[in-house]
Amino acid sequence: MKKWLLTVAMAASFGAAADEGMWQPHQLPAMADELKAKGLEISADSISKLTEFPMNAVISLGGCTASFVSPKGLVVTNHHCAYGSIQYNSTPEKNLLKDGFLAKTYAEELPATPGSRIFVTEAVTDVTDKVKANQMDKVGNEFYKGIELQEKTLVAECEKEDGYRCQVYSFHGGLEYYLVKQLEIRDVRLAYNPAASVGKYGGDIDNWMWPRHTGDFSFYRAYVSKDGKPADFSKDNVPYEPKSFLKVSAKGVSDGDFVMVAGYPGRTNRYRTADEVNNQFNWAYPEGKVLQERMISIIKETASEGSDERIKYESLIAGLANYAKNFTSMIEYYGKSTMLADREKIESDLANWIGKDKKRQQQYGETLSSLEKLVAKSQQNQQRDILLGYIGYTTMVTTARDLYRLANEKTLADMAREPGYQERDMTNFTSSMERIDRRYAASVDKALLADLLTRYAALPAEQHLAALDKAFGISSKFDAKALAKTLDKMYANTKLNNKETRLAWMNKSVADFKASNDPFIQFAVQTFDADMAREKEKKQLEGDLMKVRPQYMDAIIAYNRELGKPVYADANSSLRVTVGNVKGYSPQDGLVAVPFTRLEGILAKDTGVDPFDAPAKQLELIKQKQYGDYYVKAVDSVPVNFLSTLDTTGGNSGSPTLNGRAELVGLLFDGVYESIIGDWGYDAQSNRSIQVDSRYMLWVMQYLDNADNLLAEMEIVR
Amino acid sequence: MKKWLLTVAMAASFGAAADEGMWQPHQLPAMADELKAKGLEISADSISKLTEFPMNAVISLGGCTASFVSPKGLVVTNHHCAYGSIQYNSTPEKNLLKDGFLAKTYAEELPATPGSRIFVTEAVTDVTDKVKANQMDKVGNEFYKGIELQEKTLVAECEKEDGYRCQVYSFHGGLEYYLVKQLEIRDVRLAYNPAASVGKYGGDIDNWMWPRHTGDFSFYRAYVSKDGKPADFSKDNVPYEPKSFLKVSAKGVSDGDFVMVAGYPGRTNRYRTADEVNNQFNWAYPEGKVLQERMISIIKETASEGSDERIKYESLIAGLANYAKNFTSMIEYYGKSTMLADREKIESDLANWIGKDKKRQQQYGETLSSLEKLVAKSQQNQQRDILLGYIGYTTMVTTARDLYRLANEKTLADMAREPGYQERDMTNFTSSMERIDRRYAASVDKALLADLLTRYAALPAEQHLAALDKAFGISSKFDAKALAKTLDKMYANTKLNNKETRLAWMNKSVADFKASNDPFIQFAVQTFDADMAREKEKKQLEGDLMKVRPQYMDAIIAYNRELGKPVYADANSSLRVTVGNVKGYSPQDGLVAVPFTRLEGILAKDTGVDPFDAPAKQLELIKQKQYGDYYVKAVDSVPVNFLSTLDTTGGNSGSPTLNGRAELVGLLFDGVYESIIGDWGYDAQSNRSIQVDSRYMLWVMQYLDNADNLLAEMEIVR
Repeated sequence: MKKWLLTVAMAASFGAAADEGMWQPHQLPAMADELKAKGLEISADSISKLTEFPMNAVISLGGCTASFVSPKGLVVTNHHCAYGSIQYNSTPEKNLLKDGFLAKTYAEELPATPGSRIFVTEAVTDVTDKVKANQMDKVGNEFYKGIELQEKTLVAECEKEDGYRCQVYSFHGGLEYYLVKQLEIRDVRLAYNPAASVGKYGGDIDNWMWPRHTGDFSFYRAYVSKDGKPADFSKDNVPYEPKSFLKVSAKGVSDGDFVMVAGYPGRTNRYRTADEVNNQFNWAYPEGKVLQERMISIIKETASEGSDERIKYESLIAGLANYAKNFTSMIEYYGKSTMLADREKIESDLANWIGKDKKRQQQYGETLSSLEKLVAKSQQNQQRDILLGYIGYTTMVTTARDLYRLANEKTLADMAREPGYQERDMTNFTSSMERIDRRYAASVDKALLADLLTRYAALPAEQHLAALDKAFGISSKFDAKALAKTLDKMYANTKLNNKETRLAWMNKSVADFKASNDPFIQFAVQTFDADMAREKEKKQLEGDLMKVRPQYMDAIIAYNRELGKPVYADANSSLRVTVGNVKGYSPQDGLVAVPFTRLEGILAKDTGVDPFDAPAKQLELIKQKQYGDYYVKAVDSVPVNFLSTLDTTGGNSGSPTLNGRAELVGLLFDGVYESIIGDWGYDAQSNRSIQVDSRYMLWVMQYLDNADNLLAEMEIVR
Repeated sequence: MKKWLLTVAMAASFGAAADEGMWQPHQLPAMADELKAKGLEISADSISKLTEFPMNAVISLGGCTASFVSPKGLVVTNHHCAYGSIQYNSTPEKNLLKDGFLAKTYAEELPATPGSRIFVTEAVTDVTDKVKANQMDKVGNEFYKGIELQEKTLVAECEKEDGYRCQVYSFHGGLEYYLVKQLEIRDVRLAYNPAASVGKYGGDIDNWMWPRHTGDFSFYRAYVSKDGKPADFSKDNVPYEPKSFLKVSAKGVSDGDFVMVAGYPGRTNRYRTADEVNNQFNWAYPEGKVLQERMISIIKETASEGSDERIKYESLIAGLANYAKNFTSMIEYYGKSTMLADREKIESDLANWIGKDKKRQQQYGETLSSLEKLVAKSQQNQQRDILLGYIGYTTMVTTARDLYRLANEKTLADMAREPGYQERDMTNFTSSMERIDRRYAASVDKALLADLLTRYAALPAEQHLAALDKAFGISSKFDAKALAKTLDKMYANTKLNNKETRLAWMNKSVADFKASNDPFIQFAVQTFDADMAREKEKKQLEGDLMKVRPQYMDAIIAYNRELGKPVYADANSSLRVTVGNVKGYSPQDGLVAVPFTRLEGILAKDTGVDPFDAPAKQLELIKQKQYGDYYVKAVDSVPVNFLSTLDTTGGNSGSPTLNGRAELVGLLFDGVYESIIGDWGYDAQSNRSIQVDSRYMLWVMQYLDNADNLLAEMEIVR
């Protein structure tokens, strides 16, 4: 009986089981025995040290992960992570997306899209005490701002050293804070990419799907000044020489083999309360899906296919469709899961455990109920808040607000400004103002805004914002025609559709804004105070949450410690390590997804029409069974993609998948459809990551694209 | 080298390899060693004898197969084969489809839908010599009619014995003829069917798909008069006592086990020439698909959803959609196959073999070219002929034609009449005239006809039929409005929409028709002579084909005999046996279909919405893992459906799937999507039949529907 109770308790304790867990490198030495038993051949210690092999070869592109694979700064990442740079360098005459690209010499390498960066993590320091110093007596907004200021101070100090970018990451909802210091390489160049018909094979249709046959890899090179320091693009720059780099395995992995991934996962929600889970899956995702699908159809109705307007919105459509597919999967698999019951069980087990001990009662007795109250408060106006959120996808309202906010923030000392409006953010801010030209059409923006405001108008009175109502003339008796008239006028008269105008506003004063007769500027001015008040309220709540959620996590960690189980923090874009195995799964009763796909699968999928239009040469090589050096008997072909149990999420894209000796055996680029819900809970049965097999990458480089120069430069384990 | 040549020759010789082959029972003894090696435990001899166990337990329902499973005439077949009878007995108050049905006593059993028959094959006699006697000097139409008369004579003679239905089946395109004599049981009753949410679980969505979770089984009982003779329904009738019946296995099968199916496959095209294959896949299927999809959209546009008109056409929509899905699969997998190249190789190998021997040259030297010429001739007007074929789906034109044809045929002696118009066909003919009320709406019929005639009008002049043009006023300058006006008038004035009127026309004379002013009767009279002339032309060609195709098959059989390989005939709705194994397959690179599905798969698919709305009690039983007597360790559940390599096609539905001891281990009910093209060629990699597992059937009967009376009556091997 005892054993049975223990088993149940363990299953419902939030502690990591199986291959679950996105570990901070410093947690690994404590797990050394387990890692060794799983198949890690190098020492657990070595992967905990960020400035040593292999971790110092794992780098961030900001949103994607990558790794050094040669002593000359050659970087491998996903094709979809380098997509912007490939597109940026493409012209109708020389289409790198369509035809692929290979620089045969350094000189032929092309600058990556403006703003491209390579971040090499050099230090991760626990700054919890520093961040919290003198703050713990504050509450609400004061606490929020206090913590924020401490963070900004630490960052500013850290960034004093030239060529570095620093950031403080909060773990466990604010239980711990770590300062991450990264070398920021600013001269990034495109060295090689296969054609999109290899690198994006299967396109959006295969996105999140298995079986998969995508050659999702591309190569950058990092450049620095002659003295080895980060520098802006210059012909005189030289390839960066990393302290170490990954060897690439031509032997690859087999079914069941140990694998691990080091990378920068973005965000997970593994420790949310039952109430939060319930609200998210029963309200937020379904509601979000409705809005996404509605926005897509408005764009399609307003901008006819092939029109200039439509082209500008294709990427928003793709983004919204991607989210809608994501949410659809979430909702579907939530319906099939026991997630809510599991969370409730955890909470009651935790409550029992707390109740059994007086000291624990004192410490955590009120935690869960306090957290629940704050969560409920945050959901109070969620119908309105979600609409305001999606209004953020429209351009004119957002642009005017951002510009006026900047003018206001500029009246403050740099350190006192809201993050995003500090001097260090101005490069990004300028890019975002420039970018609008390629992504904005008044007709579409107006139609989207009209629809969202119409929904807003239908909300109960208590959720309405007086300033917003006034700005758009929305009253209790909603008049669609009047709104249309108002918007027509605003869009007809605004000058914010002009790039120079927008950039000029970046340097104007609050008074200039107040004096402007631009209708969107006027709107921003009119609603600013109310927005700020609402933001303050939000920070008030956020500050309270930043005090309670750490307590909750502290209780969970203490509880699991008693069970002998380590607890990993939710993903937060900081460097993590996850371990697992090459393994298939059953997507459905009666079907088994085997862990490897093969070259022949490309032939079978190929229709000659995008996204299933592999290069003719590739199809010919496959037909002729030209497997070359990469034939694998177990699959009687060259493996193309493989499945693993690795616990990953968005941001892990491009991560090197390593074998037990830390050789690169694949590039992580996706998860299967059934594991999208994995951001909320890892399911050992269905959580699978999808990797490009290193043998396929090498096969494409060697036989399809003749990238001999890069193959010679890399260290390939044969 | 020799071995290599032989291998290639064998692969491309049309002879059966692997589990390919729909064998006539008399062919089995010659294959005894092979069958034994495969796993047949009873003697091959015994399955060749139609009047002995187990073959005399395998029966036909006309379109479906079934089997006796008790000494009291209990018959098991597919739910979809008994669907008409279940529907026929359903009322809004007592919905057998929705709730299922179980007669606890004989008295509670319900009459099957009118016209239901059970055919017990009692003799199959080679009548080749009789059919061909004195005919071989004839050609064309004369030969066709001569053969037809011989067949009709044999049938009439055979049917002299009361209670029998006889038919002559042509094999190998007319190389051999067999007379099949079947006991015709006319009192068929519904004994038990699970709810459609079990028996049709997955519905049209899962149709032809794997994974599958369909409980596609139902039970009839055969009744005869007290003296054991077939009789019309009567309360005094008693259950038929078959000479033998199948035991039902509760042990079932495992992956790899031997299985065989006896049944009545409808039609295959395994020996068509390369020219025929090319035309079928590159012209006929794509063109048919266009017409089917067009007809579906016309019906949907004309009859709004939920309208009375729409309800009448739901079954036509379903039928057309089913064909469109079927054709889509055919076209898709043809594109991926090497079928055409394979056929061309066979033809050239055969030509080589013929060319190597003078006698063979004399015998078969001209065969293939003659066949090709005839095939080309048959395709000459195919654009027109396919349209006329689909016009056959419309009601008024077809009804008028059929009735006038009947009046004409009735002027002839019964034996001289066209099959379908003999006295023995009048029960069917009457049913078809009655049925129209439930399947006809003038608005839809008119819209379909107008569309097909518009397509016809656009054909090149040389394909036009003068009589048809005249009847509908179609000239070289097509006038859509004029046609619409003509049709409006015809549909407004016809009385054929009245059942009594139609039935009355069945007894009128040719003169009555000629005197009628019903516009569709007038149409039939006007076009009759031209139709008959065209039919004669067609029979002329058919007669020529009936001389040449047997020569071609004779050459193929002789060629294969040299290679030591038996040749099976294309399916023709006569009794066949096919053998194979329980086996999964790979539907796609990276995916494996495992051979069994499990109860848990029903839970996972269930949405509560038709067709995924299993009964609440069933879901509860599964949740509670109430596997009872049918738990199978290998799948850790009760197996629901399983895959086999059995070579089957339409008409095999309801066939008992037997183990090596001829115990019933499943009911065949479908094939997988990838094997729809199997009608044209068996592919060992992807040809899979889908069976209901006998253990699932017994589990449903025992735990869900409490059919204890039937379980007690059956002999179950535990």
